[in-house]
Amino acid sequence: MTARIAIDCMGGDHGPSVTVPSAIHFLVEYPAAKLILVGQEDVLRPLLGSQVDNPRLRIVHASEIVGMDESPALALRNKKDSSMRVAINLVKAGEADACVSAGNTGALMAISRFVLKMLPGIERPAICAPLPTINGHTHMLDLGANVDCGPEHLLQFGIMGAMLVSAMEHKDRPTVGILNIGEEEIKGNEVVKAAAELLRASDLNFVGNVEGDGIYKGEADVIVCDGFVGNVALKTSEGLAQMLASSLRSEFKRNWLTKIAALIAISVLNNFKKRFDHRRYNGAILLGLKGISVKSHGSADVLSFGNAISRAYEAVENRVLERITGRLTQAQAIAVENV
Amino acid sequence: MTARIAIDCMGGDHGPSVTVPSAIHFLVEYPAAKLILVGQEDVLRPLLGSQVDNPRLRIVHASEIVGMDESPALALRNKKDSSMRVAINLVKAGEADACVSAGNTGALMAISRFVLKMLPGIERPAICAPLPTINGHTHMLDLGANVDCGPEHLLQFGIMGAMLVSAMEHKDRPTVGILNIGEEEIKGNEVVKAAAELLRASDLNFVGNVEGDGIYKGEADVIVCDGFVGNVALKTSEGLAQMLASSLRSEFKRNWLTKIAALIAISVLNNFKKRFDHRRYNGAILLGLKGISVKSHGSADVLSFGNAISRAYEAVENRVLERITGRLTQAQAIAVENV
Repeated sequence: MTARIAIDCMGGDHGPSVTVPSAIHFLVEYPAAKLILVGQEDVLRPLLGSQVDNPRLRIVHASEIVGMDESPALALRNKKDSSMRVAINLVKAGEADACVSAGNTGALMAISRFVLKMLPGIERPAICAPLPTINGHTHMLDLGANVDCGPEHLLQFGIMGAMLVSAMEHKDRPTVGILNIGEEEIKGNEVVKAAAELLRASDLNFVGNVEGDGIYKGEADVIVCDGFVGNVALKTSEGLAQMLASSLRSEFKRNWLTKIAALIAISVLNNFKKRFDHRRYNGAILLGLKGISVKSHGSADVLSFGNAISRAYEAVENRVLERITGRLTQAQAIAVENV
Repeated sequence: MTARIAIDCMGGDHGPSVTVPSAIHFLVEYPAAKLILVGQEDVLRPLLGSQVDNPRLRIVHASEIVGMDESPALALRNKKDSSMRVAINLVKAGEADACVSAGNTGALMAISRFVLKMLPGIERPAICAPLPTINGHTHMLDLGANVDCGPEHLLQFGIMGAMLVSAMEHKDRPTVGILNIGEEEIKGNEVVKAAAELLRASDLNFVGNVEGDGIYKGEADVIVCDGFVGNVALKTSEGLAQMLASSLRSEFKRNWLTKIAALIAISVLNNFKKRFDHRRYNGAILLGLKGISVKSHGSADVLSFGNAISRAYEAVENRVLERITGRLTQAQAIAVENV
């Protein structure tokens, strides 16, 4: 099977100036992959250069663009010919195996859900992305699709996250933890407590509570949380990392002595930077849909957006959707047997 | 007025080996302050050395210790003579103006609340601590006392936080933001939306939503959130900072070349480290009580615990409690007028 990825080329802060070069790099790196570039043909075509005749690449025209600040409900209702909508339609129609967009997250969620529909047994989609840890990385979900989750949703997130990691990383029984707070008396709110019970009773490899600092200690392969908490944890991390990086830079720029120190330390600093480069972690999968829809950071650059395309490709190649669907069918069969 | 601080010397991971040296340093640094060291007298006295006759220092014996993992409810009920309880009792009795403990957070909350009682108009205490930002620092609350807050609690946190910053930092109208997530369609859960309305209608200097990354951008002087989210944000930050620091260390230790680079860059790295040293930010105030109770990180070292004592001292000297009480009385008077 050759994965075919549809790319919303008009989405994101930078639009085609980032998405098209990323797509071209990707085609070189993945010599079997096929891409469908979706967007305004007269804008996209000139950017393709010598790749314009690449048989693994085609353009599908879409006349409209979903704005980064546009209301998702309005984008869903009014922009039937947006690059985002058309890219998702291609997945639905079976012409693409996955789609990638750096556009408006809310609109991508709403349109993906409307067009692709939910998997049976899953009530809410979840945004799942990898985060670096001291010894590798972890996957966290939900990162912002749902602000009020019930215990059963968190259980579903656990199942989907475990199947994703199992498929993508060939781990047999990835560990699953639930994001919680540590004080004895108040260990979590009622939803988290009830969700922990469900996870414990499931056949997942549940390791219990993970506190905020446990995320980066790599205490679990998959960490579930509601979208409000997950989004706060993710953005807080981004903010802290940015502040530390900018402060380290300005310390090294303070005077000529520190500038010399920076020159000498540059390879060390670059290694450090590379290891935690957030661009390497770009590409969040919307789980729970009957299709693969990948969200890139809106501000992604060429390298970063390329990683989001790769994530979509790897998800298809590793049959993530089949793995999740299979696991859900099995869970339902057991549930029916137990009735 | 000379602030008198009661110290639970037995609390924390390290107990008197940290708390007593911190207390001695503090007395040198603050030549007007008075300290009451609470704990097992035969343990504390030998640690005082030449300070044993310092007229600004006295020991109050307490026979019991609240364990770090002890149930707060049991500690409250059974350990009437714990160093924690006795220190809080001293505040209640008017013998001390504030107390500081590095012990069990849940127990400190429960006992402080039981002994000191809540301020009129405040339904729940909140844990409030400073966090560094790119251009200074912010104060966040609640950091873990309450896992399920209603909108009116978040409003109360906003009032208390603003009065704290106003008193401690002599800011006339500190800005107040609410921690939220940014997706258009789902901007926050119902509680956060309703709380934002209340904050907007109040006379606070409310600046609206702050996303996770906005914490470190210094978007508000005070950021309110429920204790679950606040605790996750705080611990996630701690975890990320630890991972980055340990990784930077190991990059510089990789080989003899990088070790030389480290030697040359050491003053820059130390400046950087100092600026964000979490020990500088130790000392969370439990707001909403009829007395000042300060929580130190359990793992605090001498420097760190000293900062928690200083925070308690500054809170007393700057009349934080009077400021909060005055503001609440005023709010109630307006509320009565409007009936």
